Amino acid sequence: MPTRWYNILADMPTPPAPMLHPQTRQPLTVDEMSQLFARGLSEQEFSRERFIEIPDQVRDLYRIWRPTPLVRASGLEKALDTPAKIYFKNESVSPVGSHKLNSAIPQAYYNKVEGIQHLTTETGAGQWGSALSIACKHFGLDLRVYMVRVSYEQKPYRKSVMHTYGATVIPSPSETTEAGRQMLAAYPNTPGSLGMAISEAVEYARTHENTRYALGSTLNHVCLHQTIIGEEARLQMEKTGDYPDVVIGCFGGGSNFCGISFPFLRDKLAGERSTRFIAAEPASCPKLTHGKFEYDFGDSQGLTPLIPMYTLGHDFQPAAIHAGGLRYHGGGQIISQLMKDGWIEAADVQQLESFQAGVLFSQVEGIIPAPESTHAICVAIQEALRAKEEGIEKTILFNLSGHGLIDMASYDRYFAGELS
Amino acid sequence: MPTRWYNILADMPTPPAPMLHPQTRQPLTVDEMSQLFARGLSEQEFSRERFIEIPDQVRDLYRIWRPTPLVRASGLEKALDTPAKIYFKNESVSPVGSHKLNSAIPQAYYNKVEGIQHLTTETGAGQWGSALSIACKHFGLDLRVYMVRVSYEQKPYRKSVMHTYGATVIPSPSETTEAGRQMLAAYPNTPGSLGMAISEAVEYARTHENTRYALGSTLNHVCLHQTIIGEEARLQMEKTGDYPDVVIGCFGGGSNFCGISFPFLRDKLAGERSTRFIAAEPASCPKLTHGKFEYDFGDSQGLTPLIPMYTLGHDFQPAAIHAGGLRYHGGGQIISQLMKDGWIEAADVQQLESFQAGVLFSQVEGIIPAPESTHAICVAIQEALRAKEEGIEKTILFNLSGHGLIDMASYDRYFAGELS
Repeated sequence: MPTRWYNILADMPTPPAPMLHPQTRQPLTVDEMSQLFARGLSEQEFSRERFIEIPDQVRDLYRIWRPTPLVRASGLEKALDTPAKIYFKNESVSPVGSHKLNSAIPQAYYNKVEGIQHLTTETGAGQWGSALSIACKHFGLDLRVYMVRVSYEQKPYRKSVMHTYGATVIPSPSETTEAGRQMLAAYPNTPGSLGMAISEAVEYARTHENTRYALGSTLNHVCLHQTIIGEEARLQMEKTGDYPDVVIGCFGGGSNFCGISFPFLRDKLAGERSTRFIAAEPASCPKLTHGKFEYDFGDSQGLTPLIPMYTLGHDFQPAAIHAGGLRYHGGGQIISQLMKDGWIEAADVQQLESFQAGVLFSQVEGIIPAPESTHAICVAIQEALRAKEEGIEKTILFNLSGHGLIDMASYDRYFAGELS
Repeated sequence: MPTRWYNILADMPTPPAPMLHPQTRQPLTVDEMSQLFARGLSEQEFSRERFIEIPDQVRDLYRIWRPTPLVRASGLEKALDTPAKIYFKNESVSPVGSHKLNSAIPQAYYNKVEGIQHLTTETGAGQWGSALSIACKHFGLDLRVYMVRVSYEQKPYRKSVMHTYGATVIPSPSETTEAGRQMLAAYPNTPGSLGMAISEAVEYARTHENTRYALGSTLNHVCLHQTIIGEEARLQMEKTGDYPDVVIGCFGGGSNFCGISFPFLRDKLAGERSTRFIAAEPASCPKLTHGKFEYDFGDSQGLTPLIPMYTLGHDFQPAAIHAGGLRYHGGGQIISQLMKDGWIEAADVQQLESFQAGVLFSQVEGIIPAPESTHAICVAIQEALRAKEEGIEKTILFNLSGHGLIDMASYDRYFAGELS
């Protein structure tokens, strides 16, 4: 298991433009960020060190399920009759069934060592909320989760999981914050969005003692923690003798895509490889493929710093698709800069084709993927079929960010023909 | 990963009495058994070879998730403030979230190589049905699952999982078999039972071409396949320098208990160790602690061979507890003989205390256990607390047979105070 996270900020030829303070519009400082996030995380956010040591207490917890398997998807290769080699990194084996725990643990850890007692966060599909619930339970922190209302209703068992781990879960928008009340007044029937839930969680953290906020994606320190996925995958790929020509991850706020990609992208930035990196986003929330690159807020109410990124607008209200974890309006600072500079690509995927890919994968590989992860599978299948058309042998690596065992209601709706 | 399964029949000082043909009441033969089960499995049922090679195609599939982690439950040790060392074997990491896949794969395999096209089976909680669905999909077999009605209703997403893997799932008792129709006439509101579901699956297999039946527990060949758990655990325990003083598994039909126990019991049978083995059964279905040792059928209608075993009677109708996988009336041939001869023990656990143990475990170890597995955890906790009272350092090993992520409805009911 790797002992260090990889910080791509050290190697980017064009460093991203700074985040701006939401009021002063001046470049954000570590001190300012520390008012909302733990200082250790704020420092990571701005760090230019290439490698950052993973604290022992974090590694001890990683060892519960890491290293995660790198699997040759031979069932899928056979089903597609493709000359491509397909590998996937199986992040679904974590205790919460997704990659989110990779960042939840260090986030809870840094808050704990700084003496913070309460955390707030948002969650879309519930994967991040579940992960942070475990991590907070472990470090003795109290957690309040604002869960996007449509997921709260579509995925009732996700909140049961968080409940079992001792967290408080509130459907968002809610009456518990000023931001929530405003949103409910403006859109009484809103299914909610990650942007709204973030506003509520941020407001609550700002207005309560000894409380900080934690974010499950988008920010640099989150992507940093997730690089454990790609660092491990590099070591595992070495043993196979293969190196990926294409790396694919689904894309919501970027955490799993960055996690699998950055350690391989390091070789491309160094001019040693020409691997393609594809972010698979839902067609209903296509910030990378159809968004604008501009300064925008991370939340719907404008409480977070302004981030230079591809965005659909912080008031964008995505359709209530089942891949709740991908319903986020912005692409984050690092990914957006890499996209702008042509280092990575993006593809958009329709909901029905994503579930179709998920069912095929379930049947040939045995693992039912999370609705989010089906987007990566779908693009991997497209790449494998293109390799077949072109008669080219290439190596495809994708990240299976999570399993779908708690999302069977979504598959039921797919089989019943109720999804569009 | 071990290359061989361990067959405890080779080492039992008192071999179990033979199974009897249900009509002739004569000892069952391999040929007779082969009319219902694949011949390869029937031969394993009667084999006296100590070790049986795991076929390559089976090992290739095992490698998807095996070896499974052996975990030191340090969170639990700390929470209990016990001098005992607690280890658990984490079988929840399989693609279906339980140990059942260990036998599903070889069962589908042997049927496949013999040219069988259709399989039938029963399932309680749905773990076995899910596992066999994957295995059948892999080997191109068609599968029909009779699912105990109460689980079909309590655990709707389990049938979605089987559906995703392409199986046909029928709530039992059903109108699709003579056995089912008789049971519905006699008990119109029955929640069903494993015994009933077995009758239906057996009848369907007997009355259809090129169709065999597969059973997820109880029989010798199933226990044999599950010894991969204990064989692996032995190798992993060796690395820790510890050896278990107590081995614990939850007990429904015996498959996971036998799997974790037999490879260690080999040392006890050889006079080299004095480890205790505890089968943790639900108080509502206490065949080992309160059943009678006698010949009984494996199903409610008397279609299976007669098995010499501890039983509550083949017409016993267990309460509709949430640990659906433990609602079986009989203890199986090998376990019952071992129990009779004093090699193993049994303990019964109330539903509420099992969930209480499950919630504690979730919070300190991060994994939400299946309702079945909470029984093993509960007994492990009792043993650890006893060690504390007595001031004795001992090593406890239990099998975490599966996770509970698809059983969150059960946890919801527990938290709502609706369970008894």
